[in-house]
Amino acid sequence: MSFPDRLVSRMGEFGPLCVGIDPHASLLHAWGLPDTADGARDFGLRVVEALAAHAAAFKPQSAFFERHGSAGVAALEDVLGAGRAAGVPMILDVKRGDIGSTMDGYADAFLSGPGEADAVTLSPYLGPGSLERTARRFAAAGKGVFVLALTSNPEGALVQHAGGAGSCVAGRVFDAVRSLNADLSSKGLGPVGLVVGATIGDAARRLDIDLSAFNGLFLAPGVGAQGAGAPEISEVFGSARNRVLASASRSVLHEGPRADGLVRGFVETRKALAF
Amino acid sequence: MSFPDRLVSRMGEFGPLCVGIDPHASLLHAWGLPDTADGARDFGLRVVEALAAHAAAFKPQSAFFERHGSAGVAALEDVLGAGRAAGVPMILDVKRGDIGSTMDGYADAFLSGPGEADAVTLSPYLGPGSLERTARRFAAAGKGVFVLALTSNPEGALVQHAGGAGSCVAGRVFDAVRSLNADLSSKGLGPVGLVVGATIGDAARRLDIDLSAFNGLFLAPGVGAQGAGAPEISEVFGSARNRVLASASRSVLHEGPRADGLVRGFVETRKALAF
Repeated sequence: MSFPDRLVSRMGEFGPLCVGIDPHASLLHAWGLPDTADGARDFGLRVVEALAAHAAAFKPQSAFFERHGSAGVAALEDVLGAGRAAGVPMILDVKRGDIGSTMDGYADAFLSGPGEADAVTLSPYLGPGSLERTARRFAAAGKGVFVLALTSNPEGALVQHAGGAGSCVAGRVFDAVRSLNADLSSKGLGPVGLVVGATIGDAARRLDIDLSAFNGLFLAPGVGAQGAGAPEISEVFGSARNRVLASASRSVLHEGPRADGLVRGFVETRKALAF
Repeated sequence: MSFPDRLVSRMGEFGPLCVGIDPHASLLHAWGLPDTADGARDFGLRVVEALAAHAAAFKPQSAFFERHGSAGVAALEDVLGAGRAAGVPMILDVKRGDIGSTMDGYADAFLSGPGEADAVTLSPYLGPGSLERTARRFAAAGKGVFVLALTSNPEGALVQHAGGAGSCVAGRVFDAVRSLNADLSSKGLGPVGLVVGATIGDAARRLDIDLSAFNGLFLAPGVGAQGAGAPEISEVFGSARNRVLASASRSVLHEGPRADGLVRGFVETRKALAF
């Protein structure tokens, strides 16, 4: 089964909510865990255990593991392994972006071995074309990638909106990814998703980007504590809203460390996503 | 001493050549090393040992270590430590780029602890403003960052040239970094450098970006095997050419694994950079 088919099937069963695994120092403290690689591992394993039967996917944020050095990366590997063993798609948020053989190195890192994920996020500053070979390798392995397009942080517009309506950077990324998906998948959804913030409001429309025409999945951070729910997702994605994997972190994680708290935070956050 | 002052001093003493530490699978094979984390560590340590008294700086490419998982990251940490112990500025090529607290996580990873570097590369797809706090933290620690601006891979133009002459993405990054440097350093060079490919030809001029007006250092990949020497650097950087740290990998590394071979490759590559 292709990665998007697998994810869509999970979203049908569990709803569209992905849970970020973000072991911030402040969350580790709140959970009574040490601010160490071991603390980050325990944190991630607890989230996986509590929510594997609820979340459509998990999205570990690499930075919060990398801050503990190679021991932190080893902890991340354990969390990825636990999530994958539980059958949950693991979307590793690494936002890598480089050229040629360097991207091959990153693909090697996340396609197999201890750092294996089901999908990774990629950053297109070096051009969406620089990510194409990686996307093809992930697709060939039944995995996926999500390419940054329109993010909700205000500083992003200076780059992503450059070029203006009809030819802005985010639209160029959108077009390139759409072509690649069409090439990689003759029917159904392609393996290359886009990261589009759930709180961007009407930015896509103002930039003349028709998100409803996209032939893949969206990963939309910003739900829950960051303010977005069903109305915001409908505003941003319109008729494509059923292809949105919405990602929440704080609104779920702040209810830990107990499993019942995490489930309650998860259920509350998911409720706000019901259309 | 600030990071740019330290680097400029080294460039005055040793010339402007930085050596990439890129343990590709093919290079490990050519050197008779296993394609493992241990092989990557040995590779990096040999480069450091052979060239610490020659190179202005080293630039380890994180992807070629990450491909071996957490054990590869541990190898990278050892290589960073060896280079720093030898007094050579270690510019870790990670091209990270994210928002807020996530960038803080990456800053934590590379500012201190086992992954400590003297500078890192950053990617501005989320806007140069999203990198500002990280740049300030590195500057406060006497370290530096290099932000991707104009890369030489052909696919990069779709994003970096968007907006056209006078308001293109690369120019926006250039302006934002210049303002930040002015704020961070009232005199002399600021701690925020730019990555500009040595083989971009007249792209900056066509885009109306005056590189000679930049108040920091340039990191310019693409010399040696990738084709650029003094004429290409003069064409791209003009009167700013003395602020260019040129980075070479293959033309040096292919002469290993013996130290005398690496030194010969280094000296030959540096010769091609004499103005």
